[in-house]
Amino acid sequence: MNNDALEELIESLKLLPGVGRKTAQRMAFALLEGERLSARRLSRALQAAAERIRRCSRCRNYCEADLCAICTSPQRSAETLCVVENPADLHALEQATGYRGHYFVLHGRLSPLDGVGPAELGLAQLADLLADNPVSEVVIATNPTVEGEATAHFVAEIAQAGGAQVTRLAHGIPVGGELEYVDRQTLAHAFGGRLKL
Amino acid sequence: MNNDALEELIESLKLLPGVGRKTAQRMAFALLEGERLSARRLSRALQAAAERIRRCSRCRNYCEADLCAICTSPQRSAETLCVVENPADLHALEQATGYRGHYFVLHGRLSPLDGVGPAELGLAQLADLLADNPVSEVVIATNPTVEGEATAHFVAEIAQAGGAQVTRLAHGIPVGGELEYVDRQTLAHAFGGRLKL
Repeated sequence: MNNDALEELIESLKLLPGVGRKTAQRMAFALLEGERLSARRLSRALQAAAERIRRCSRCRNYCEADLCAICTSPQRSAETLCVVENPADLHALEQATGYRGHYFVLHGRLSPLDGVGPAELGLAQLADLLADNPVSEVVIATNPTVEGEATAHFVAEIAQAGGAQVTRLAHGIPVGGELEYVDRQTLAHAFGGRLKL
Repeated sequence: MNNDALEELIESLKLLPGVGRKTAQRMAFALLEGERLSARRLSRALQAAAERIRRCSRCRNYCEADLCAICTSPQRSAETLCVVENPADLHALEQATGYRGHYFVLHGRLSPLDGVGPAELGLAQLADLLADNPVSEVVIATNPTVEGEATAHFVAEIAQAGGAQVTRLAHGIPVGGELEYVDRQTLAHAFGGRLKL
């Protein structure tokens, strides 16, 4: 009863992904040490992010203005559009590849059981975007899971209706992986999709 | 420039112990999903904890009032006093043992190179506490590190000056540990401190 604030802090930290009771306790005690500047800074950052971050009205990526930095950048081409499941995937592609086109963020994948249908993924908005701004190539970068594949098919139909060429990220053996340890499906994919040297 | 709030959120999450760039990103994206109730709740909890949690004026444990729940509990005896390095250690002892005495939290360990001396650890306050409220036993529960041992010697002197019996947590083989894998020092301690069956 005397330590409600500490208990509530531990419970709130448990909301973070991958953080259980023990880790939350360690974090709480670390944040309470000294001047508590970290706790205050994190509190402010969370507040600001929750209030200010919204979706780009064009590509649904996280941003603070009406349009995100990628959609407004003059150095990026609207000729290609890469469709990703969530902003984290966009981030990963931005950091790993030299892609200079635009994106469209679904914020999820088709999953009727969880109530996620075309409306939740903004597929109508995607169709409008493709109708208003014809693009030459739509790169589908959904995850290679069952729901991700279903979503990819749906997006491909919309893109083809818009007259764009549709491509999909290559599946195969991870760089640095060994044949022996690659799972069967991946190996079958890699064999079926072999390229001329 | 367009996503300062997200970048600041990731940087702030990196202040948590054990959280690097990648984990911070994953946490930030998870917090931004949906209605963002978790982000707001964590923000409020951090703010409240930073403002309201202070040190018990008697034992220096974290609490929100002048005295902590342990110091004010009628079910706990002030006859024994357990000296710990930090509130996390106190928490661990509370959860693992049936100890019903009082505590004294040092908030650190003697470490002259880091500027941590007797004043920072509240050792004068501990001496006053022992002078005003004679206790029969002082249990020293500092960590078995070099600094922890030095701190233990210091605390033991103060406690002996106060006329209390001084005890130290037992060192030995961890329960469930195997002799073969226990380090030499621990094994030597366990052998030297063997008990009659």
